[in-house]
Amino acid sequence: MKLSRLGEFGLIENAKDTFKSLNKNIVVGIGDDCAAIKPRKGFLLIATTDALVEGIHFNLDYIEPYQLGVKSVYINLSDIAAMGGIPLYALLSIVVPPSFSVKFMDDFLKGVKEGAQKYKVSVIGGNVSSSKNEFSINITLLGEIEKKYIVLRKGAKIGDKIFVTGWLGDSAAGMEILKRSQKSEVRSQKERKLIERHLMPYPRLKEGRFLAVKKIAASMIDISDGLASDIRRICEESKVGANLFIDNIPLSKELKSLNPPSPPFLKGGMGGLDFALYGGEDYELLFTVRPDKIAKLMILWKGMKIPITMIGEITKGGINITNKKGETTPLQREGYNHFSPLTPPLPFGERRKDIM
Amino acid sequence: MKLSRLGEFGLIENAKDTFKSLNKNIVVGIGDDCAAIKPRKGFLLIATTDALVEGIHFNLDYIEPYQLGVKSVYINLSDIAAMGGIPLYALLSIVVPPSFSVKFMDDFLKGVKEGAQKYKVSVIGGNVSSSKNEFSINITLLGEIEKKYIVLRKGAKIGDKIFVTGWLGDSAAGMEILKRSQKSEVRSQKERKLIERHLMPYPRLKEGRFLAVKKIAASMIDISDGLASDIRRICEESKVGANLFIDNIPLSKELKSLNPPSPPFLKGGMGGLDFALYGGEDYELLFTVRPDKIAKLMILWKGMKIPITMIGEITKGGINITNKKGETTPLQREGYNHFSPLTPPLPFGERRKDIM
Repeated sequence: MKLSRLGEFGLIENAKDTFKSLNKNIVVGIGDDCAAIKPRKGFLLIATTDALVEGIHFNLDYIEPYQLGVKSVYINLSDIAAMGGIPLYALLSIVVPPSFSVKFMDDFLKGVKEGAQKYKVSVIGGNVSSSKNEFSINITLLGEIEKKYIVLRKGAKIGDKIFVTGWLGDSAAGMEILKRSQKSEVRSQKERKLIERHLMPYPRLKEGRFLAVKKIAASMIDISDGLASDIRRICEESKVGANLFIDNIPLSKELKSLNPPSPPFLKGGMGGLDFALYGGEDYELLFTVRPDKIAKLMILWKGMKIPITMIGEITKGGINITNKKGETTPLQREGYNHFSPLTPPLPFGERRKDIM
Repeated sequence: MKLSRLGEFGLIENAKDTFKSLNKNIVVGIGDDCAAIKPRKGFLLIATTDALVEGIHFNLDYIEPYQLGVKSVYINLSDIAAMGGIPLYALLSIVVPPSFSVKFMDDFLKGVKEGAQKYKVSVIGGNVSSSKNEFSINITLLGEIEKKYIVLRKGAKIGDKIFVTGWLGDSAAGMEILKRSQKSEVRSQKERKLIERHLMPYPRLKEGRFLAVKKIAASMIDISDGLASDIRRICEESKVGANLFIDNIPLSKELKSLNPPSPPFLKGGMGGLDFALYGGEDYELLFTVRPDKIAKLMILWKGMKIPITMIGEITKGGINITNKKGETTPLQREGYNHFSPLTPPLPFGERRKDIM
C-alpha cells in the first residue's frame, strides 16, 4: 500500500502508536499541538537539530529504511554526546513523497523507535508532510546537562593535547564500497565492517558524558564532516591552532587492510588517511585535554570499551600536520562541502565557519 | 551569487550573524554542537515542530522569500498559542538546492529573524543542508507554560460551546486568488487582504495565552487544516461530538464580497464556507468553553482586538452541521489531505487521526 492511500492521518496514527512512552516527565506526548515536558531541577536544557536528505546524505539503494531510522536518531545523539549531555526527547519531522510504501515507512519508524529506545530517548512529537520527489528527515533532540559539566568547542588552549575516540575514516570508506559495488554482491567481513560503520554510527554518549563529568575534556566536538573540518571548528571557536600527528590518526585494521581508493573529491594521496581527514560521518568525539589531566584520563579510561588516541596538540595558530619524520606542513584542505561537491575544496586561507 | 559558491559554511556564518541574541537564559546559542538554555523554575517546557515544503505548502511564484521566512515562524508559534504557552526559542533547519541565490537566502533569513523578534523568540540553533531539487524548512519551537494553565485538545465536554477567533477561510481563498492570477496583476484591496491572510497568518499568541491564564478554554487547537478537520481532532481526543451552526461561522467581509470560486477538491457548493470548512491555514484558534464560563468570556474579551464567535456546541457523538432553518446534517468531508490531493476526501465514517 502506498502512503497516498493510507493518507497523512493514517500515517500519523501509525507513528503515534509506535512512539507511546511512559517517561514520567512527559506531561503531554504525541497527539496535541505541542509536547510538554517537565525539566529536571538544576539542569540546563540542550537542543540540537539535524536533517538527512535523500540523494545528499543517503541513497536508498544503499541503506535500508530501518537502518535509516536508526541512523537519523544516532547522528543527533552524537551532538548531545559532544557536549557531555544526557539525551531525553526527540521530535521527528518527515517529508515524504506519497508514492512511498507504507511498509517502507513502518520499517523506518521502527528504526527511529529502536534507535531512540536504545539510548532511553522518547519521541514526544513530530510532523509528517508530503513532498513532490524527495524524502527527508529532520530530528530535533532535547536533553539535559548540568551547567558545571558542559563542554564547548571554545575551551581549547595552547598546549592542550588533541584526542579522538575510536577509529576515523571507516564510515566514508564504507560509503565508497557501497557506491562502487552492487547491492547483491557478496562482501568480505572487512567490507561489511566498514559499511556498518557508515550505516550505523553509534553515538559516543557514554564516552562524552564521562569526559564531561570527570572534567577531562576542555573542548569537544563530534566528527561529522571529517577531522580536517572539525578540528578547524574547535580552533576557530577557541582562537587557537593545531598540529596533527598524522601518523597517529587511528585507522581501523579493516580500513588499513582494504585501503579502498578514495574518490576524486577526497583524493589527497594519503590512502586511508584521506577518508579520516576529509570523509566525515565518523561521529567519533574529538576533544582536547590540558597536559596536567592526561595521566588522569589514561588511568580513568581503562574501563571503557572504545579506545582513545592522542593525535596532536593545540598551538598558537594555523592548522598543520606533522609526519613521523618530524616534517610539518599546513593542512591543505577541508571536509566535504555538500553545497559544491564538484568544486575543489577551498584552500586553507579562505574563511569558512562553524555549524549554526 | 549562488549558494554553491558561498558554500555551506558561508551560509551558516550568515545565519549565525543574523540570529545573535541577548536573552540571558541562553547559555549556549548558535555555534556549538547543541544550544543550551536555562529553563524557568515552575514552568513546563513545550515543544512543537513543523515543516514547510516547496510545491506542497508553498510555491515560490506566490510568496516572497521574506514572507516565507516570517510565515515559517508564525505557523509554529500558532501551535504554542493553541496550548496557551509562551514561545521562547527556535531551531531552524533548512534544506535548499545549491542553485538558490544568496540573496534569496538572506531575505528568507531576514524574515525568520523578524518573525521571531516580533514575538520575542530567539533562534538558538539550526542546520543547513543542500538538496537536489526541493527547498524545505523545518522549525522547532520551544516555549514554556505553567502546568496549571495548559490547554489540551482533550478537554472538551458535552455542552461546551465552540468558539473561534477571527475569520475563517481567508487564507485558502487568498491562495486560490494567487494561483489563478498573474504575479504582475493589479489586485483589488479586498484581494490583497485575503492574500495577506494567506502569506502572513499572525499567530494568536495573545489570545491563546489569555484563554489559558483566565481558565476559560476547556480545550483548544489551532486551525491549520480547516475547521472540519480540526474540530474532528478536538472531538476525537475528547471522545465527544460537535454540532456546528453553519451560518455562524465567521467569514470576513472581503471573503463574502469576493466569493471566489472554490477549487475542485474543496467544492462543496457552500461558497466561502467551503474555504472555512476545508481550506486550512487559517491559524485561528478553535476552542470550547463550559456554559458557566461564557459570561466571563464575553466580559473579559472586551479589550481584545480579534473578535471571537460562537459557532457550535459539543455533543455526545458525530459531527453535524445545523443551518439557520434548524436543519441538521452530518458534516460530509474533511480538510485537505496533502498525501492524496486528487482523490476525493474520505467520507465521515472512515478513520483519520490526529497530528502526531
